[in-house]
Amino acid sequence: MNDLSANKILVTGGAGYIGTHTCVELIEAGHEVIVFDNLCNSKAEALLGVERITGVRPELVVADLRDLPALIETFEKHEPDAVIHFAGLKAVGESVNHPLRYFQNNVAGSINLFEAMRKANVKKLVFSSSCTVYGSPKTLPIDENAPVGNTSNPYGHTKYMIEQILRELHQCNPDWNISILRYFNPVGAHASGEIGEDPHGVPENLMPYVCQVAVGKHDRVRVWGNDYDTPDGTGVRDYLHVSDLATGHLSALNKLDSNPGLMFHNLGTGNGYSVLDVIEAFRSASGQDINYEIMPRRPGDIAAVWADTSLAEKELGWKAERGLEEMCRDAWSWQKNHLNGF
Amino acid sequence: MNDLSANKILVTGGAGYIGTHTCVELIEAGHEVIVFDNLCNSKAEALLGVERITGVRPELVVADLRDLPALIETFEKHEPDAVIHFAGLKAVGESVNHPLRYFQNNVAGSINLFEAMRKANVKKLVFSSSCTVYGSPKTLPIDENAPVGNTSNPYGHTKYMIEQILRELHQCNPDWNISILRYFNPVGAHASGEIGEDPHGVPENLMPYVCQVAVGKHDRVRVWGNDYDTPDGTGVRDYLHVSDLATGHLSALNKLDSNPGLMFHNLGTGNGYSVLDVIEAFRSASGQDINYEIMPRRPGDIAAVWADTSLAEKELGWKAERGLEEMCRDAWSWQKNHLNGF
Repeated sequence: MNDLSANKILVTGGAGYIGTHTCVELIEAGHEVIVFDNLCNSKAEALLGVERITGVRPELVVADLRDLPALIETFEKHEPDAVIHFAGLKAVGESVNHPLRYFQNNVAGSINLFEAMRKANVKKLVFSSSCTVYGSPKTLPIDENAPVGNTSNPYGHTKYMIEQILRELHQCNPDWNISILRYFNPVGAHASGEIGEDPHGVPENLMPYVCQVAVGKHDRVRVWGNDYDTPDGTGVRDYLHVSDLATGHLSALNKLDSNPGLMFHNLGTGNGYSVLDVIEAFRSASGQDINYEIMPRRPGDIAAVWADTSLAEKELGWKAERGLEEMCRDAWSWQKNHLNGF
Repeated sequence: MNDLSANKILVTGGAGYIGTHTCVELIEAGHEVIVFDNLCNSKAEALLGVERITGVRPELVVADLRDLPALIETFEKHEPDAVIHFAGLKAVGESVNHPLRYFQNNVAGSINLFEAMRKANVKKLVFSSSCTVYGSPKTLPIDENAPVGNTSNPYGHTKYMIEQILRELHQCNPDWNISILRYFNPVGAHASGEIGEDPHGVPENLMPYVCQVAVGKHDRVRVWGNDYDTPDGTGVRDYLHVSDLATGHLSALNKLDSNPGLMFHNLGTGNGYSVLDVIEAFRSASGQDINYEIMPRRPGDIAAVWADTSLAEKELGWKAERGLEEMCRDAWSWQKNHLNGF
């Protein structure tokens, strides 16, 4: 597996949903992976899934980004070449109830990480941002030059603030190479069925909720509004297979070797699907009935969001390869074999 | 001194320049003051100056905002009713060379402070922001509705980010009462001559530099550009006597008792003075020759900035009372008796 360009990569939040899928791609590309995770929203067992797929179990450092000495020690001990930074809280609703928890974990935690990188002279970073930084888009599809910052909740705001910090850091230290990836809506699971999304409590997002309806954990999907200005009236999003998202990180990491400075890229498919499209595709992929009920709109929800993905294709040589059918098929094969997650 | 409305106020950075002057006003208004300061840019001796003026030496907790347990312990031990938050690094040039130091101290430190307040159920805060959040103003004078965020260095950016965090915190928790004060250019010293500005190394700001020229520490003031679009071609700023600024904090603190929610106010005089105006006023107040030399413009400098102060007058009942002559007189009487600061 090892090749000349193999690197040691520190993956914060590497035991989480997107983290594990990215670990798989990193290991399969010959990189060595160190996971730094506080396991507050993930389980160490997820890395056993990574091992079953790749034959390699990534080393796990159970520690918290808010603990700067632990970060510094990790960099000293493992001497990573680059960092992929997933760790962070991500529940919109929780962030409104506990904004300081989000500022502490996400913003202050990231500042600690960057400080530990600076001390260790590690200057290559891939950061997981989100299309939430665009707020309510003025035009579709959204490209990377769309205005940012008009976020509607503390979670989104922490992503925006970390982007701002990285912008400033790069401006003051142009020898850093930083890839900021703005994810659209990651769904699905690894095709092996060994790893997948393992949401804590009742999922806030559509696909894991649909999965739980399919296995009988909930009786119906609640569809929040069918009077939006979209083809069928329900909200439209750019769903993206998590394994495509994972390879996007690999492409970004490779690009950092060419000294590109600070980069921003959307990661999505460029296609928008409605809530009803997803329900229908999942019904077809799973063979299960998926009941749903139309509910009133939720405040803060946006009618439609999808990405212009041409920049990632041009600059990173990356393009999503999997369609909605595959996303539903893989989500289902994970869900039915892992009724209670890991 | 005590009256019925006396409160216990935690003053972070209370041993610093603006902090000590505010401690004096708080104590003279009958409040009890606890200073929380890491002394990285200040000296404990400054509080002896406060004692010589007021007869009361504020209790000093020597600790750092980055140390959350120390903050929590301070709130548990002292049970303050409100917080005035000055602590933070403030050197623009240093912030460009050490951006993460600024994000750690100012942003992460403030998040810790707000978290400790939340835990202790203290929901009254006065925060020291800066006119730097306005960036390069489109119109003058600047009022509180002018666009913010287009800051040109990490120092300014930290002030903007803390404002954003407080905005979000208040939106999620409307029972917090928060006064954000945007200072223009504080100068001068307490009329007693007992406390004043004690800059670390060569001052970045005009007035302390002029003071040091007056006492012979430097041979001349370097004037950065005389070809700006201002009456005499040199940069124009809204200088404000530090004792006026201090009473502004008292006015804001009093206002918080009326449950105003989140407030933003400019604190300035509303008058702009040029570099040459300041040099001339200082020459006259001190009787000293002040040599100066015209230098090229510095990148990032702005021609003119002054405040619209009507909102603070209307809502806080506060107005600066001291003019440029008094600012120079008091700066000089402090400087000549404290050649090497405290």
